[in-house]
Amino acid sequence: MTGTIPSREREFLDAARVGRLATIGPDGTPSLVPICFALVGDGTPVIVSVLDEKPKHVPDAELARVRNIRRDARVRLLVDHYEEDWSRLAFVQVTGVAAIVEPGSAGHEAAIAALRAKYPQYRSMAIERRPVIAIEQLRTRSWGLA
Amino acid sequence: MTGTIPSREREFLDAARVGRLATIGPDGTPSLVPICFALVGDGTPVIVSVLDEKPKHVPDAELARVRNIRRDARVRLLVDHYEEDWSRLAFVQVTGVAAIVEPGSAGHEAAIAALRAKYPQYRSMAIERRPVIAIEQLRTRSWGLA
Repeated sequence: MTGTIPSREREFLDAARVGRLATIGPDGTPSLVPICFALVGDGTPVIVSVLDEKPKHVPDAELARVRNIRRDARVRLLVDHYEEDWSRLAFVQVTGVAAIVEPGSAGHEAAIAALRAKYPQYRSMAIERRPVIAIEQLRTRSWGLA
Repeated sequence: MTGTIPSREREFLDAARVGRLATIGPDGTPSLVPICFALVGDGTPVIVSVLDEKPKHVPDAELARVRNIRRDARVRLLVDHYEEDWSRLAFVQVTGVAAIVEPGSAGHEAAIAALRAKYPQYRSMAIERRPVIAIEQLRTRSWGLA
């Protein structure tokens, strides 16, 4: 479903501390990084992630995920739960369209607030000055959410 | 580096219980699933994963990852460590070329043995009758491995 997320999937995404974001590299192969993220918006949900101060090899604009999204905005996010009791495995696959949202642009402030509400670690980091990745037009598919 | 993996990365991959595999979908967007995997081969390492008996929606040959690999063998695997102390985050990104290896083919038996050695759960599952995904020509990039 585009634009809404079933409540069980929403609870799973809200509870998850990390997801894995796939973008499309310049040669067509996927790029894959772990990301912290939050779900914002009650009506039309948006997944947000910030280019935070965790050490990076390169400036923001040169980050593979940023270059990839500027070239092709289609992304995939996987959020899963693993444990040794395999009857309890679960995941939510999210497909969407991503944009880079700079500070001062619509939605940036709400994204930062949502990320700080979810992650105490962000409360002492100056992420309000950092670009946000906003993923919209969400479609989800889940497995194992009992 | 192709064909060898630094020992710190190898230890990280050996210890990890789950990774996330990205393949290229028919429309060019990434497909992303959590997988159990093992690293085999001392000289030229290979990452193996089995199409196991965890419930699936469709038969093996119709699984998105299988169809995708048959269309375009280039894959990416992400293995990461998350914890709330962000100074301890780490990941290994693996790029490689995947093949579907049927029972009876070269490498299948060693793959099954490695998966059963790593995952006790597999010892009571008839995975010896199941196709294996073998990822070769490995190139790795890591972050946060102290």
